[in-house]
Amino acid sequence: MNEDYYMNLALSLAESAAYQTTPNPPVGAVVVKNGRILGMGAHLKAGEEHAEVHALRQAGSEAEGADMYVTLEPCAHFGKTPPCADLIVEKGLRRVFVAAIDPNPLVGGKGIEKLRAAGIEVKTGICEKKAMELLTPFFHFIQKNRPYVTIKTAVTADGKTAAHTGHSRWITSDAAREDVHLLRSRHDAILTGIGTVLLDNPLLTSRLPQGGKHPIRIVLDTHLRVPVDYNIIQNKEAKTIIFCASDAQTKKQRALEEEGVTVIRIPYMSIDAVLDELGKMNIMTLLVEAGAEMNASFLDIGAFNRLVMYMAPKLIGGKSAPSSFGGLGGSSMDEALDLTFVSIDTIGPDVKIVMEKR
Amino acid sequence: MNEDYYMNLALSLAESAAYQTTPNPPVGAVVVKNGRILGMGAHLKAGEEHAEVHALRQAGSEAEGADMYVTLEPCAHFGKTPPCADLIVEKGLRRVFVAAIDPNPLVGGKGIEKLRAAGIEVKTGICEKKAMELLTPFFHFIQKNRPYVTIKTAVTADGKTAAHTGHSRWITSDAAREDVHLLRSRHDAILTGIGTVLLDNPLLTSRLPQGGKHPIRIVLDTHLRVPVDYNIIQNKEAKTIIFCASDAQTKKQRALEEEGVTVIRIPYMSIDAVLDELGKMNIMTLLVEAGAEMNASFLDIGAFNRLVMYMAPKLIGGKSAPSSFGGLGGSSMDEALDLTFVSIDTIGPDVKIVMEKR
Repeated sequence: MNEDYYMNLALSLAESAAYQTTPNPPVGAVVVKNGRILGMGAHLKAGEEHAEVHALRQAGSEAEGADMYVTLEPCAHFGKTPPCADLIVEKGLRRVFVAAIDPNPLVGGKGIEKLRAAGIEVKTGICEKKAMELLTPFFHFIQKNRPYVTIKTAVTADGKTAAHTGHSRWITSDAAREDVHLLRSRHDAILTGIGTVLLDNPLLTSRLPQGGKHPIRIVLDTHLRVPVDYNIIQNKEAKTIIFCASDAQTKKQRALEEEGVTVIRIPYMSIDAVLDELGKMNIMTLLVEAGAEMNASFLDIGAFNRLVMYMAPKLIGGKSAPSSFGGLGGSSMDEALDLTFVSIDTIGPDVKIVMEKR
Repeated sequence: MNEDYYMNLALSLAESAAYQTTPNPPVGAVVVKNGRILGMGAHLKAGEEHAEVHALRQAGSEAEGADMYVTLEPCAHFGKTPPCADLIVEKGLRRVFVAAIDPNPLVGGKGIEKLRAAGIEVKTGICEKKAMELLTPFFHFIQKNRPYVTIKTAVTADGKTAAHTGHSRWITSDAAREDVHLLRSRHDAILTGIGTVLLDNPLLTSRLPQGGKHPIRIVLDTHLRVPVDYNIIQNKEAKTIIFCASDAQTKKQRALEEEGVTVIRIPYMSIDAVLDELGKMNIMTLLVEAGAEMNASFLDIGAFNRLVMYMAPKLIGGKSAPSSFGGLGGSSMDEALDLTFVSIDTIGPDVKIVMEKR
């Protein structure tokens, strides 16, 4: 066993409960003494115990003189729960191993200072890269007050999202489509445009064999054109929020509100304005599942962080068949937005390609 | 050491000299006795010695009682060289291990029969899958009398081959573009359309740091519109063949022929007719580097075997920006042509995705 072994265990704990801690970060902690695990825990829900508290409670009085592996610097401030750094000092731990430092200005190294001041040995940066990947959406949210945005698209090998007729069911396999439901469940909210709603009448819920958290459904619908009898209004499994322009019909707004839908008027409808509003609602992660024009709006202002592309090994052809990003587009290749490949995995017959904005 | 070890060695020999044996298959052979390698060889050029001959010559008189590992069944017929099966019998080998059986009706198991009749122990199917991959273009050519066709394309992550303005230099990195030159050198011929020639004035040679075989350049130019001063005519590093319709100007044909270009008139210009002609010229492997409309012509009749796609991690957007396959395209996803992913590799910042027709 080495430091990485226990930190990887803590990271697995964090990851298993990630996507359910918003607006808090996913964190895992492991308490170890003489090569024996005394306690393990993850932060499970905002407002409830931090990972360190779960792990220390399991360890009980044995925690004295033990080591802790924790994926994010313990907090030093009073939030909804007392500071974890104080608890660690109180329990008499010998050493604390930390993967990532908290960029939250309320924490920012203060937790580590507190531990060291109490004579606890602290080592940072263990499995930091892996921890950062898991914490990226949280760090983004803390720093920008906006959700971490992932655009999802499903394409043929020739980059088409539909045939020239608009037919698109289905491009990818059952296995890839189930992965999309997993992706949805791992986001706080899912955003689409009124065009996609009118075309596909989607549910936009997360339909997984063992269940899964449904994301909040966000529809950008400037003129409130969504019919009240559509799935996104009638299906009550997930909350629906519609953004419209300030001059949209108030009568239609009332009809939607009677169905439990939240309608938000934006003076100047724009992606930027919507993302600011979503940040205020504590939406930390946003999945965009929309058409080529909406995707192009995000591309035009660079307002996304990640692209998840499911590609099926098939060719449909068609000069006028739509691709994943429409709009006018850049005039020369120098104007292209640079990404990097993060991962490429096969899912059934298809591949899943994840890219991040540089 | 086991059978696979020596067969993999024979396969490496075959692969190293593949792409220079047309219209013959790439073959490698290793002669082994008591765990010592006595001879190794690959077929290097059509009309010259087969792999078995090189390996046996190296082994000399020690070949008696030795084993041979050969990637393709030894030939039993007189071609440009005498039958290898006879030579193996004459040299007194004890056992012969074979990866793949020759589908050539002139050989088709006859080599193995001959060896067994002479009391040599023969075992087939060792590393067969890997051998088949290497031999696929040859088998295709033998059975269809047409080249094995690979379509190459370079796209952005949103599937575009250029910006909406047509600007496309460059989509991919230097490393990916060097791989394209390697891909060219591994093909007998490279085909493009007159549209691409007029747009890009390409050389279509194989420009590699250590040199490389240039493919024959094939241009489909129905009305002989190619200007005589263009690179593809003036550059003499590679042979150029132009296919045109039967009513193209004879004066232009003569001007092109004076530059050393071969002009072939086709009564009914079609991909099928061109592929038949190329088969007759013993062109075993053909790389298509063309625009969306030409690619769509190949797609429409399913007249290709493999797709090599270089994808850059960048987004250019643009509803009217071209993608790799144009034309009308299929009307519904059921009409898409099914492929399978063969390999996905990173090349510098880009990825190279290879797909085969199912």
